[in-house]
Amino acid sequence: MTTSPLFTPVPLRSTTLPNRLVLPAMVTRLSGEDGVVNDDIRARYVRFAKGGVGLVVVEAMAVHSAKSGPLLRISSDEFAPGLSDLARRCHDAGPGRVFPQIIHFLKISRSGWRQTIDMLSLEEIDAIVDAYGAAAARARACGFDGVELHMAHAYTLSSFLSRLNPRKDAYGGTLENRLRLPVRVLTRVRAEVGDDFPVGVRFLGEECIRNGYTVVDAGPIALRLARAGADYISLSAGGKFEDARHIEGEPLYPYTGYSGDRCMPGANYPDGANLYIPEAVRAFLRSAGDETPVIAVGKISSAALAEQVIARGQGDLVGMARALLADPDIPRKWRSGREDTVVRCLYGNVCKALDENFRRVDCTLWPKKMGQAPESDDTIAPVWPAAGPGLRAEFAEGRVLLRWNAATDNEAMYGYQVFRDAGTGLLAHFSSVRGASARFEDPRVVGGDTYRYAVRPYDLAGNRGPMSDVVSITVPV
Amino acid sequence: MTTSPLFTPVPLRSTTLPNRLVLPAMVTRLSGEDGVVNDDIRARYVRFAKGGVGLVVVEAMAVHSAKSGPLLRISSDEFAPGLSDLARRCHDAGPGRVFPQIIHFLKISRSGWRQTIDMLSLEEIDAIVDAYGAAAARARACGFDGVELHMAHAYTLSSFLSRLNPRKDAYGGTLENRLRLPVRVLTRVRAEVGDDFPVGVRFLGEECIRNGYTVVDAGPIALRLARAGADYISLSAGGKFEDARHIEGEPLYPYTGYSGDRCMPGANYPDGANLYIPEAVRAFLRSAGDETPVIAVGKISSAALAEQVIARGQGDLVGMARALLADPDIPRKWRSGREDTVVRCLYGNVCKALDENFRRVDCTLWPKKMGQAPESDDTIAPVWPAAGPGLRAEFAEGRVLLRWNAATDNEAMYGYQVFRDAGTGLLAHFSSVRGASARFEDPRVVGGDTYRYAVRPYDLAGNRGPMSDVVSITVPV
Repeated sequence: MTTSPLFTPVPLRSTTLPNRLVLPAMVTRLSGEDGVVNDDIRARYVRFAKGGVGLVVVEAMAVHSAKSGPLLRISSDEFAPGLSDLARRCHDAGPGRVFPQIIHFLKISRSGWRQTIDMLSLEEIDAIVDAYGAAAARARACGFDGVELHMAHAYTLSSFLSRLNPRKDAYGGTLENRLRLPVRVLTRVRAEVGDDFPVGVRFLGEECIRNGYTVVDAGPIALRLARAGADYISLSAGGKFEDARHIEGEPLYPYTGYSGDRCMPGANYPDGANLYIPEAVRAFLRSAGDETPVIAVGKISSAALAEQVIARGQGDLVGMARALLADPDIPRKWRSGREDTVVRCLYGNVCKALDENFRRVDCTLWPKKMGQAPESDDTIAPVWPAAGPGLRAEFAEGRVLLRWNAATDNEAMYGYQVFRDAGTGLLAHFSSVRGASARFEDPRVVGGDTYRYAVRPYDLAGNRGPMSDVVSITVPV
Repeated sequence: MTTSPLFTPVPLRSTTLPNRLVLPAMVTRLSGEDGVVNDDIRARYVRFAKGGVGLVVVEAMAVHSAKSGPLLRISSDEFAPGLSDLARRCHDAGPGRVFPQIIHFLKISRSGWRQTIDMLSLEEIDAIVDAYGAAAARARACGFDGVELHMAHAYTLSSFLSRLNPRKDAYGGTLENRLRLPVRVLTRVRAEVGDDFPVGVRFLGEECIRNGYTVVDAGPIALRLARAGADYISLSAGGKFEDARHIEGEPLYPYTGYSGDRCMPGANYPDGANLYIPEAVRAFLRSAGDETPVIAVGKISSAALAEQVIARGQGDLVGMARALLADPDIPRKWRSGREDTVVRCLYGNVCKALDENFRRVDCTLWPKKMGQAPESDDTIAPVWPAAGPGLRAEFAEGRVLLRWNAATDNEAMYGYQVFRDAGTGLLAHFSSVRGASARFEDPRVVGGDTYRYAVRPYDLAGNRGPMSDVVSITVPV
């Protein structure tokens, strides 16, 4: 059906991912404080699995029982029935494999205080190793296809890897010392799950904080972890406590500073903003003769860019979090040559803002109050009214304002894509607007330039109606 | 003598740069509070010019008379004699052209308070335009070959371009509004200096702060400035007040936060860390049919990397600040095929730390107390003692410790280069140590890997003695 390299399988020990598209772990805030899998969690991951992604990494679940906000748990057998059920339902829903991401974190308080790794005794470090080992064994027993060890962002293992690791003993200082606990955890997990069960690691390719590490250290870290038995290297960036903004009365949240911007690059970043990271780390691994697959992420939402990642050796697998949140059906749509029906993420980071405000993480592009990406087998596209789209543009207060006539659909309208040509002669997807709105403002224009715009309606199945007429406007100097 | 594309000329209006190597403006803290060119400043820039760089951009000089620390001034005719003399001496010393960088900045106080652009009245904004125009005319009258407008880092024009520009009027909000003052300044400068005098602009390709702009905005900014008459686009990154660290009793200093790290990427960053920035901006210009030359910077210190910048279209000119501080003779050494005598910057950022501590900016690799890069026509290399280099390696406390026997030179020893092979089979330059020291510690090693090392002595002219024997050590797990 497709000759895209994205749809070739990837063997990982005893299992095989059916394609190279990955849903990285993503906070949903759908779970309760009890840490048990609930209906909302189940529905969310079944929806992802149904879309055909090759690997679903289920959001971070705690290996220990420390108090926290809403967070899944895998810290004791009481959580096993819910997790087993989740794994089974995802397997029933789609072709992909399902790995839980397992996490250890330290204490934080609403005062802004946080526990740091230099406060940990050697016994507490041993307990972290034990907890990861037991959680990984539980993941296998629950029927997951593998497990991912969370060594990224602001959490315990990442703090050991950090260039700012403050420990003065064998767990801090040199790179080898910073790697000591992560390698111990990985070694223990491998001993617990056996040789046939895939174990992936996710860590930062770049810390994106003052004096933090970059790919200069991430290459050797990846190689050390690969040699210690990691089956894939998944690279994130940023998301640290060091530059987080403290909101009075709330616990410190690690995606609120610049490093949070870099973790989930928004509309002010170019597509594929972080791809230089997996590219450099993968090149380092390959130059050392290591063939461990690398998962690349960071604002990837088109098949062309995803294929370029593979072609340029920037990664072996392509992770998409926000893009799959906006449209979980991306894999099956790309595979069947229906990319034109994908509802594309705008990277407006409303999802990130919801998370930062401790609210349920939905996509703002979804139809209102749906709480989930729509599903539909409808194939009939929206139509413009008899009067036509009537697209018109005006310039006011430094912005181009577009207005048009609303389209209608046999099923239900979902939104409009906005296309722009800023002088290249090509109309490219520039933004989207949801639902009934039939207006759009563009503040990203400069004086003296001419811009062309068009809009296109889409319905719940992503069917696109006809492109509107094209309007042209020259911005005054 | 060379076929390198780095040594082809670049026409800029009525002048021509003899090659594509550029010294970007760099703080020296050599001037007094009076802002007059002194002996130290003169010696520093004459030394740069002598090395053969195609364009010397003299450190930022103020277009206005606001109080500040040690900073050159071009704000009135009283400064003209010193500046004229500086231009003339640089012209006498080498083949390159000499442009002053001219700057406007707002007030900062030792309390941490700083004036921000939303405090500026429309009259004050007009005064900025006037001051830039007069300063540029003065630069021309002083015999400089062109002028560079400072629109980067934490200073006034950069704050207008910023995505965090807080103004609510026609100078803030949309991209076109953010560009309004920089375009007015450029237009006025052009009117003052005439059509034949080159005017370059330097601004940020990426702000590297929370919610800051990236190449997504920098492309349109570059295009707008190019169309308004800029003769080159010089791209820096970071260096903002927003994430600066306040030191009690000292004025806020904009290179002390993460954005400061990104402005002058240190040893923890890969070579060419910021090259994706000029690459993207240049591609944007070219796609719009604009051919304005772009200056790429960011941890470039080898001819191979500099040539790659040109070959890959990451820039038309190559800026090197710290590399030329360490060895101003890089251009003539590269040109004559003598790259093996270059004293290579280690990006340890001692120069940056000196600046942050309000001290004179020298290079730590220079022989002690010299206050300048050495000059020598000697061609006799250092020699090892009769007993040979005797290089030995041991592992202790997570580090590899190297020791060897000191070399001697007919003239004077300068330092040792340290080479390392981390498993690729190639010994590559890894670090340098200065002067009499005959030991080196490497903390960047991981357990289980084998490392090979060698060292090589060099003298004041950069002549290298013979490579030592190679030692091999396997780091225990």
